[in-house]
Amino acid sequence: MTAPTRADLEALDAADPLARFRDAFDLPEGVIYLDGNSLGALPKATAARLADVTTREWGSDLIRSWNSNNWIEAPQRVGDKIARLIGAGAGEVVVGDSTSVNLFKLLAGAISLRPGRRTILTEPGNFPTDLYMMQGLEQLLGERLRVRVVPAEDLPDAIDEDVIAVCLTHVHYKSARRWPMAEITAQAHAKGALAFWDLSHSAGALAVDLNGAGADLAVGCGYKYLNGGPGAPAFVFVAERHQAQIHSPLTGWMGHADPFAFVDDYRPAAGIKRQLCGTPPILSLAALEVGIDLMLQADMAALEHKGGALGDLFVALVEARCESLGLTLASPRRAADRGSHIVFAHPEAYAVMQALIARGVIGDFRAPDMLRFGFTPLYTQYVDLFAAVESLQDVLAGEVYRDERFRRRLSVT
Amino acid sequence: MTAPTRADLEALDAADPLARFRDAFDLPEGVIYLDGNSLGALPKATAARLADVTTREWGSDLIRSWNSNNWIEAPQRVGDKIARLIGAGAGEVVVGDSTSVNLFKLLAGAISLRPGRRTILTEPGNFPTDLYMMQGLEQLLGERLRVRVVPAEDLPDAIDEDVIAVCLTHVHYKSARRWPMAEITAQAHAKGALAFWDLSHSAGALAVDLNGAGADLAVGCGYKYLNGGPGAPAFVFVAERHQAQIHSPLTGWMGHADPFAFVDDYRPAAGIKRQLCGTPPILSLAALEVGIDLMLQADMAALEHKGGALGDLFVALVEARCESLGLTLASPRRAADRGSHIVFAHPEAYAVMQALIARGVIGDFRAPDMLRFGFTPLYTQYVDLFAAVESLQDVLAGEVYRDERFRRRLSVT
Repeated sequence: MTAPTRADLEALDAADPLARFRDAFDLPEGVIYLDGNSLGALPKATAARLADVTTREWGSDLIRSWNSNNWIEAPQRVGDKIARLIGAGAGEVVVGDSTSVNLFKLLAGAISLRPGRRTILTEPGNFPTDLYMMQGLEQLLGERLRVRVVPAEDLPDAIDEDVIAVCLTHVHYKSARRWPMAEITAQAHAKGALAFWDLSHSAGALAVDLNGAGADLAVGCGYKYLNGGPGAPAFVFVAERHQAQIHSPLTGWMGHADPFAFVDDYRPAAGIKRQLCGTPPILSLAALEVGIDLMLQADMAALEHKGGALGDLFVALVEARCESLGLTLASPRRAADRGSHIVFAHPEAYAVMQALIARGVIGDFRAPDMLRFGFTPLYTQYVDLFAAVESLQDVLAGEVYRDERFRRRLSVT
Repeated sequence: MTAPTRADLEALDAADPLARFRDAFDLPEGVIYLDGNSLGALPKATAARLADVTTREWGSDLIRSWNSNNWIEAPQRVGDKIARLIGAGAGEVVVGDSTSVNLFKLLAGAISLRPGRRTILTEPGNFPTDLYMMQGLEQLLGERLRVRVVPAEDLPDAIDEDVIAVCLTHVHYKSARRWPMAEITAQAHAKGALAFWDLSHSAGALAVDLNGAGADLAVGCGYKYLNGGPGAPAFVFVAERHQAQIHSPLTGWMGHADPFAFVDDYRPAAGIKRQLCGTPPILSLAALEVGIDLMLQADMAALEHKGGALGDLFVALVEARCESLGLTLASPRRAADRGSHIVFAHPEAYAVMQALIARGVIGDFRAPDMLRFGFTPLYTQYVDLFAAVESLQDVLAGEVYRDERFRRRLSVT
């Protein structure tokens, strides 16, 4: 691809069927936000919805809101909406807890679906919390479970009859590499294993089709492409065919068949509801629902197409304007092999990103040497790419990143 | 105690050192809210704080807020504030997840502190989610764990050398019966067992003194007396002396020693931070912090005293005005033996509570036959008791509860 001109990008914006969505977000002046894959932007409707759930539903209606404002159904209602974004059916998705906690529920749940098998298969460099939750369960269960970590290129062949589940992140948080979901799922099924997908970097960015792929289990994040707000509740998918058999050890009262009977013995609810655990986080759920409702107005295929195009154009621009400035593309070149972000490696990545952020171009740094740029099809404009790459060229060519104030401090970023 | 007159109650309000706090809450007109033990009322400052965290911190500062608005420290900052309300030290409490999930963390954590032992000891009729989470862990671990359920009167004698932890709710959600925390903790320690307290119905109502009692582990709820909002995040307490040894299986990335190093192997953070799991729920934490900040202005001993007095006066009024109307006190008579709510049994409890709610007196029903009335010392006025008991008398004496519209429907309540 030859590098686009600014006029080319403006023409793409003018023809963009998703262009109208940008105005549905509050984005600060003077900022080019390329980090919606870490924290999605604020929908304009969210503040009013939060004010209403706080002042009217909580403040005035108080405890009655569990019925009168249907708080009790919120995890399933929002789950059913998310289902439509990821190729799942009604009653297959529920919202609550964090991605980490949901990983634990479904890892343990997978064991209950495949008694006698002992292996969870994953890849090195998977998102840390995925690996850590597997390790936590492995340590708890001792010999009953082993987590086998196999490099991506060897992974399909490593699926054998001892594998409970292949547990992978659909789109890699660093490289943006996309697993072929249907293909890996079929390979797992061929050995009687389950396919368990973490959709944190794909839900809301790609036209995910869980049921089309035959996926068994999935979790995903509410605060990235779904624009649910910082630390938004996460979601859980269990294919309908597994719902009656699966058992999670996180048997909280909201997953009980009759929680308000207050009986002493746990009896799991039918269907997806047994994946609920504690009391639902109503304020956070209200914010998340605004993000979901907005995304439901968009066509997922159009979103995926635009995300891919933004990435392709960004790579072409960077390679044309920042040649010999120390960058190495660390994402797949083909859009079909990626999610909706692009990573370049640079030896001074931390300082480069700090210098970019100081100029209002917000991406993020991922250790040890990655510059990560996320493209959120709902609100990233094609023309944003031009200004972003101009800043990147300035920072690199002028060695602006060598400035003392951009050096790494030993704090979390 | 002889029943107070309305004038007596007005005099108590006039002399109440906590009276000023009522104005810090948004309470609807025409409602007497006696259900703060199920969902605390809305502090007036919460809506503005939520608007600020949404519009400015999320909307404008976006991902930068993890540092610039110190989101990353919120679970510990709010935890340290809660610590001051429950007799814990700085660095002993952290906020996140639900009470149910936190129960699981600490039940499994307790096992890691007492290798070789196999028993978790609790009582029948404990809050369902406490029992259910124990059962979920028991089912997962098979022979390595058994949950032993012993009636309260036999419980201290049942503590033996196989007990990992005595796991009890400090104030019973139905009866309001209060366990003598220091005494039971000492009895547990005498057998080498841990004392694990669920503070859901006592934090924010009683002058809880975890370290004074020598308690080992605790969890508690953010949305009851702490006024954190519906489904607010819960908290975890681990006594400092156990923090280096305890291991939870919920090893999410936020509990890692260096989460932003993104390494493949879990290494627990020092101190209480390893009790964190997924990404902190920032919007909910902001709402909770408002409730906590308000409560920190009150003296906990004064709160406990007022809660006890409200209960005593309520019982005296009910017994004077509703004699022979079918009510049976189901809470301890002595304030020192109770939390901050009162329960009366009545064969038509469900319909009676519906009729009361229709008159603006909001308590709640607990199956099978309990009318529960919570007194929140920060905003319940003494004179509220008078109007509440007048309504109760009307409903019972006039058999208003026999009206068709108050009959039980088969929906959650």
